[in-house]
Amino acid sequence: MEENEVDLGKGDHRKPEYKAINPMGLVPAIDDDGFYLFESHAILRYLSSAYPGIADHWYPADVKKRAQIECILDWHHTNLRRGSAGLIVNRVIGPALGRPLDEKAAAECEALLKASVKKIDALWLNESGPFLTGSPEPSIADLSLACELMQVEFLGEEFKSELVNPHPKVKHWLAAVEKALAPHFEDVHQKLKARAVMFQKRKEHGDSHPSSKVAAQSDL
Amino acid sequence: MEENEVDLGKGDHRKPEYKAINPMGLVPAIDDDGFYLFESHAILRYLSSAYPGIADHWYPADVKKRAQIECILDWHHTNLRRGSAGLIVNRVIGPALGRPLDEKAAAECEALLKASVKKIDALWLNESGPFLTGSPEPSIADLSLACELMQVEFLGEEFKSELVNPHPKVKHWLAAVEKALAPHFEDVHQKLKARAVMFQKRKEHGDSHPSSKVAAQSDL
Repeated sequence: MEENEVDLGKGDHRKPEYKAINPMGLVPAIDDDGFYLFESHAILRYLSSAYPGIADHWYPADVKKRAQIECILDWHHTNLRRGSAGLIVNRVIGPALGRPLDEKAAAECEALLKASVKKIDALWLNESGPFLTGSPEPSIADLSLACELMQVEFLGEEFKSELVNPHPKVKHWLAAVEKALAPHFEDVHQKLKARAVMFQKRKEHGDSHPSSKVAAQSDL
Repeated sequence: MEENEVDLGKGDHRKPEYKAINPMGLVPAIDDDGFYLFESHAILRYLSSAYPGIADHWYPADVKKRAQIECILDWHHTNLRRGSAGLIVNRVIGPALGRPLDEKAAAECEALLKASVKKIDALWLNESGPFLTGSPEPSIADLSLACELMQVEFLGEEFKSELVNPHPKVKHWLAAVEKALAPHFEDVHQKLKARAVMFQKRKEHGDSHPSSKVAAQSDL
């Protein structure tokens, strides 16, 4: 499968050729030889099932093991994802695009994000193994949740430390996911980290002229 | 499997015996001979997979057909569900519990709910068949999305008509789901309809004394 970058800043996601693949105009989406699919979790499930040779631990065939992965993936949408994405939109992207700050919404998202990290620590990490549900190997749920937490870099290194450090199990889990996926994990997050630093500097200098607004839109 | 009612008004969901099954303290959850599971979509997938004799159309084994169902189930969390549940909480449950109305949040949820119904009409209903993805038989995605739309009854019959009537395909789809699931669909929604009427009457009469607050909490 070939990787195609969708440049949100240039409005690639609103172009007819992209909307033919994902009519929602959101990323990610795949075109698997004419089969179009969107929604990141649906894509992860499909890629784990449609191709031979994918190790079982990514998306276990055992119905009970799989059900636990499904539970985490579903929970993610309305908890960790909602908290993290909502906070980044309210605290970073929104202000960079010149939108008024909705402090109540931002505070709700921050509380949800913190509660979600606490739940991951309390419910899905244990001594049986370093990955979610105590598995010795990662699953697609580890991919989704770890990548979501990586996006918190947009809120600054200090915020991320404050969020993760009170939960040593979460810290070890993130390190285990990074190690299991080396060097790809570091590779795909390098650009994000650079953008996060840029946003932080911009925030510190109060820079919000039109050109930085366009750049902000293209980065997520 | 035996049905157990969890009385939210009596705080059943906060009791240790329920939290042993679902530590999130939310409904629904299942106890399948000692295997505990929560998140409604994970439960639907599990029940379709763990027991023999479940017709394939509920959760197709074909990877592409299944991927389309997964896409709709995932989309649901952050669109139809968020719009519908958010609007009901903001416009009905919140005020009944004496919380201040957040008009901005309510308006955002209403816009998301309306956009979601439009998307169902435009993307997932077609002339191939009456159910989602144009299937001739219903899937677990039909169950989840149709039940979500039924909850809109809480906002009044008029609001539901305004939401659904501009989209004849959605109206026919809801009728097809009800027919395919008769008499169970009507049975499980009868209590909801009665509560919706009660809420509407209460709203019209401006009744918000403490006893109705407790009743309100126990109904959802």
